[in-house]
Amino acid sequence: MSDELLGVDGPEWLRADGADSDVVMSSRVRLARNIAGFPFLSKASDDDRRQTLELVRDRVLSGGISEGMLWVDVAESSEDERHLLVERHLISRQHAKGSGARGAAISAPDERLSIMVNEEDHLRIQVMRSGLAVAEAMTQIDQVDDAIEGQIGYAFSPRFGYLTACPTNVGTGMRVSVMLHLPGLRMTGEIEKVRRAAKSLNLAVRGFYGEGSEASGDLFQISNQTTLGKTERRIVRDFESTILPKVLDYERKSRHALLTRSRLKVVDRSHRALGILQSARLMTAEEALKLISRVRLGVLLGVVEGVELSTLNRLILLTQPAHLQRAVKSTLNQAQRRIARADLCRDRLAGK
Amino acid sequence: MSDELLGVDGPEWLRADGADSDVVMSSRVRLARNIAGFPFLSKASDDDRRQTLELVRDRVLSGGISEGMLWVDVAESSEDERHLLVERHLISRQHAKGSGARGAAISAPDERLSIMVNEEDHLRIQVMRSGLAVAEAMTQIDQVDDAIEGQIGYAFSPRFGYLTACPTNVGTGMRVSVMLHLPGLRMTGEIEKVRRAAKSLNLAVRGFYGEGSEASGDLFQISNQTTLGKTERRIVRDFESTILPKVLDYERKSRHALLTRSRLKVVDRSHRALGILQSARLMTAEEALKLISRVRLGVLLGVVEGVELSTLNRLILLTQPAHLQRAVKSTLNQAQRRIARADLCRDRLAGK
Repeated sequence: MSDELLGVDGPEWLRADGADSDVVMSSRVRLARNIAGFPFLSKASDDDRRQTLELVRDRVLSGGISEGMLWVDVAESSEDERHLLVERHLISRQHAKGSGARGAAISAPDERLSIMVNEEDHLRIQVMRSGLAVAEAMTQIDQVDDAIEGQIGYAFSPRFGYLTACPTNVGTGMRVSVMLHLPGLRMTGEIEKVRRAAKSLNLAVRGFYGEGSEASGDLFQISNQTTLGKTERRIVRDFESTILPKVLDYERKSRHALLTRSRLKVVDRSHRALGILQSARLMTAEEALKLISRVRLGVLLGVVEGVELSTLNRLILLTQPAHLQRAVKSTLNQAQRRIARADLCRDRLAGK
Repeated sequence: MSDELLGVDGPEWLRADGADSDVVMSSRVRLARNIAGFPFLSKASDDDRRQTLELVRDRVLSGGISEGMLWVDVAESSEDERHLLVERHLISRQHAKGSGARGAAISAPDERLSIMVNEEDHLRIQVMRSGLAVAEAMTQIDQVDDAIEGQIGYAFSPRFGYLTACPTNVGTGMRVSVMLHLPGLRMTGEIEKVRRAAKSLNLAVRGFYGEGSEASGDLFQISNQTTLGKTERRIVRDFESTILPKVLDYERKSRHALLTRSRLKVVDRSHRALGILQSARLMTAEEALKLISRVRLGVLLGVVEGVELSTLNRLILLTQPAHLQRAVKSTLNQAQRRIARADLCRDRLAGK
């Protein structure tokens, strides 16, 4: 896989230099689309799949959709390469594990835009941005969506909107999600309130790696569930103006409360976490995320000094199995990864 | 209380420069004695207690028993001062908590010899040495015992030997004990075997602070239970030549096994412990002992560098409540001690 694609700086969304990046790690919008005139994937023959794949690949590589796109043939990629893309949130686990002709187009080096081809739908278009930037992501994905529609043509029903493989995506076919770092709400135990509130608003709360993944490192994905009966703009507005400001406010208040009521406990927790990251010789990915989250809270609250947020954000990704193996340039079993992960944390936090 | 007594270097037994000090922290011999012509303490009047106290104090201060002895009037000491003596193993908890005229004579600055007056018996004579030095302690205590007997005269029965308040001490009135650091046996889970073996040999296994205290920091006291029907020399020989070499051998073998079979786990544990001690802002005495023990094992196995054993041994004592308060020169509640303890550990391990 191209080194150009997976540069050392990491994807743009990890820089945490966007708006409200004390709480919002990244914002994401994705669209589910199918190409007019081709059968849905559940009914597609191998030949159909190849045709849709080639159609999109040719348009992408000709620059007809967006400039500077790279093409990854997922079916031909190694397992390590596919995991790497999953960890970077460029393709889904389903796409990595799937079978048959399938691919992904990715904008390099920023990795803001990615298009999965032949996942559940013919096209899954995604734009990801650092910090709270749902509207910006929406603007970009609109342009891409228009470009693809102009070049390829979508399956669309005047009554239902965009047609998708799964009925939950029918309508706008759009899902908006944000990755939030909520250590304050987690520590004060109020996270369950947020979960309940989100559920009542028809929002899904998931872990760092989407459906079925635990909220490791106090990282939570919140996304809309409704795609039918609302316009794209309405979905974005509800999300960005109504729901998120409340969650951000809760999180910041709980951090402030921790700092005033349990300052020493927070200082102790974050310094212990840093001490362990700087000392351990064995480390699971789960523990690394937990410790990084605690240090991150300490840095954000100004009680841990000398550690850059960008270093921590990068470690979130680099401590994941596939990235770890890429960093040490070899394939490792689980026991070896624990050693390499501890080494990496010590090195990075020593500024190496 | 005299600063001369409780100097910064700590007692001699903490230096860990004695024989087999990789496993044996200290050796201790104590004798229970009562003065002829005075009623046992259970039947003594306040006046009797004062008389035995004054008798011993006068002999001690005149230099008639041993040179360089300091006198502490335990009944007149503050609670903090009494706790300090308990933590240093110079007096028992019972002696600290007791009532009525009572005192202690202590050799300064080495603190090898201490004599409790009016504890359970009129006299409890103790010699404590660094490392495995039961025979040396025995030689010293013999001399002291002879000197006291020459000056004061003991309650003695030709049939039972030295008469003591509690029947379990009758006979030689002697108890021999060693403080062992057994992290290897603790980690491999074989410590229970040692407990069972010790029990079958009529030995008691206790924690760092004697009866009823838990084996904090993997520190265990092993002592003889039988005082009747064996000569002093026989007790010492059984202890030093038969039982201890086996325990030392078990511990060393288990450490070696850990190093060959689970090297990384041991390296990880000891470095994490050091990292936490160097980072935490809140620390209980219990946790401090646990962490110090892990670092100590790492230093002894050569996998942790840059930390002196003497620093760790001193921290074992300095992290105890009364010593901690002495170190910061103020009375602290439990919450304040947790802060001061963490600060002390960070400072000492940074070489301050």
